[in-house]
Amino acid sequence: MTSPVPSCDVEIRVRYAEADAMGYLHHAQYFVYFELGRTELLRRNGVRYRDMEARGVFYVVAKLECRFRAPARYDDLLTLTTATARLTPLLVEHEYRLRNGDRLLTEARSTLVAVGRDGRPHPLPDDLYAQLTGAGPS
Amino acid sequence: MTSPVPSCDVEIRVRYAEADAMGYLHHAQYFVYFELGRTELLRRNGVRYRDMEARGVFYVVAKLECRFRAPARYDDLLTLTTATARLTPLLVEHEYRLRNGDRLLTEARSTLVAVGRDGRPHPLPDDLYAQLTGAGPS
Amino acid sequence: MTSPVPSCDVEIRVRYAEADAMGYLHHAQYFVYFELGRTELLRRNGVRYRDMEARGVFYVVAKLECRFRAPARYDDLLTLTTATARLTPLLVEHEYRLRNGDRLLTEARSTLVAVGRDGRPHPLPDDLYAQLTGAGPS
Amino acid sequence: MTSPVPSCDVEIRVRYAEADAMGYLHHAQYFVYFELGRTELLRRNGVRYRDMEARGVFYVVAKLECRFRAPARYDDLLTLTTATARLTPLLVEHEYRLRNGDRLLTEARSTLVAVGRDGRPHPLPDDLYAQLTGAGPS
Repeated sequence: MTSPVPSCDVEIRVRYAEADAMGYLHHAQYFVYFELGRTELLRRNGVRYRDMEARGVFYVVAKLECRFRAPARYDDLLTLTTATARLTPLLVEHEYRLRNGDRLLTEARSTLVAVGRDGRPHPLPDDLYAQLTGAGPS
Repeated sequence: MTSPVPSCDVEIRVRYAEADAMGYLHHAQYFVYFELGRTELLRRNGVRYRDMEARGVFYVVAKLECRFRAPARYDDLLTLTTATARLTPLLVEHEYRLRNGDRLLTEARSTLVAVGRDGRPHPLPDDLYAQLTGAGPS
Repeated sequence: MTSPVPSCDVEIRVRYAEADAMGYLHHAQYFVYFELGRTELLRRNGVRYRDMEARGVFYVVAKLECRFRAPARYDDLLTLTTATARLTPLLVEHEYRLRNGDRLLTEARSTLVAVGRDGRPHPLPDDLYAQLTGAGPS
Repeated sequence: MTSPVPSCDVEIRVRYAEADAMGYLHHAQYFVYFELGRTELLRRNGVRYRDMEARGVFYVVAKLECRFRAPARYDDLLTLTTATARLTPLLVEHEYRLRNGDRLLTEARSTLVAVGRDGRPHPLPDDLYAQLTGAGPS
């Protein structure tokens, strides 16, 4: 079984509607970008989050932390690095770094909990957990 | 049975995140306001859209038209008038006027279609249609 | 002088935050996509909208019309075709077609007006108009 | 001089467009609500943030932390409590509690930095700082 991909980069161009009256990317919008990063990291590990939901497996956000070091502006082309910091059957922690060229704009961290259709914590199915950790059947 | 309420006014204050880099309320955001107006017009007719959805009755947007005459800005307190222009069991047309004091900012019109859980057109249940038209049982 | 590019295609993947409680791309969000299409069409004609704004030349939306024929869902990869239907020094009309594979989801049309820093209509500077129409100096 | 108002409650009804495909208020949207809470807390202390910006005094978000304990849904009527935890001429820390009736949904904390038009840290003007702290001229 192949090793899981631990992190990935995604390029994101700031949309006009995402900038606020100061001309800066609005701070709430960064969390939409981070979610996009998580989706792509899953995809590179062979998992579509959309298919997870179709199986009744959801991730809900339990905790977010973000430090804003420098602003982004409309039409900037940014690079988001999303990395899995910790993965258990019940939760996943990600780390994010958003850059504009070499300049670090934002650092963030999130904790998500796996839940079922009822919204209650529920461990990931074994096959999915194995796929994400690379711990395949021997 | 009481007559249906044909229109209603809602006050909406423009949020910071809703303004764009020009400092104006972003044009896409107006449609979020209009939706809010529809929800409140339903509520004043005794219907919670959330309860409609719980029964498997949905409205989907089929057509939108909007003319923007003057901009709104962050922190402006606007008045949205939402009126039902036409209601049949299968569709509803609304008209919207958004004002800042006496100044007309935007005029719009929408057509929504009633659909079921499968996303296909489905007439409103009789009791709901009666409640919205005032055509109650004699 | 080269002819202007009359239309362009952009691929857009629907983000999780852009879907509503029905699981469909929210209708207001389409207008954010159309704006993105306009920005890219300008860019392929050698113009960055951000640079236009830095010169004090802005486009504001005067009119929007949109017909929604079929829904888009989270994680769908859509193709947006943006075409210039009419361009004068004072206004520009665009047409949009949003597709999921071969399936047409949405058709729309917009009118934008060129304004100055004061928000009043102001014709495009000659060099910019020439660049967008291909009508270069003889 | 009157004492500053240390905290305030604002009622916010969840909009349809703010819910995601799970039917829950999207996690990024909470930060838009918190910003709205800050604006209203300023207003109750006699300061319009819009007027601050007109004077060239801006607050930018430097740090955010949020714990999500229970979800909110479309049409829920929520109560947001925003409190000033610390205020200096250069920064302000706020604490937020978002509830649905008696149920605590979210706890958050933010740090904002006062900046000038150039985006660099700049202490609040004396009169504004005095108004927000109640430390008036003797």
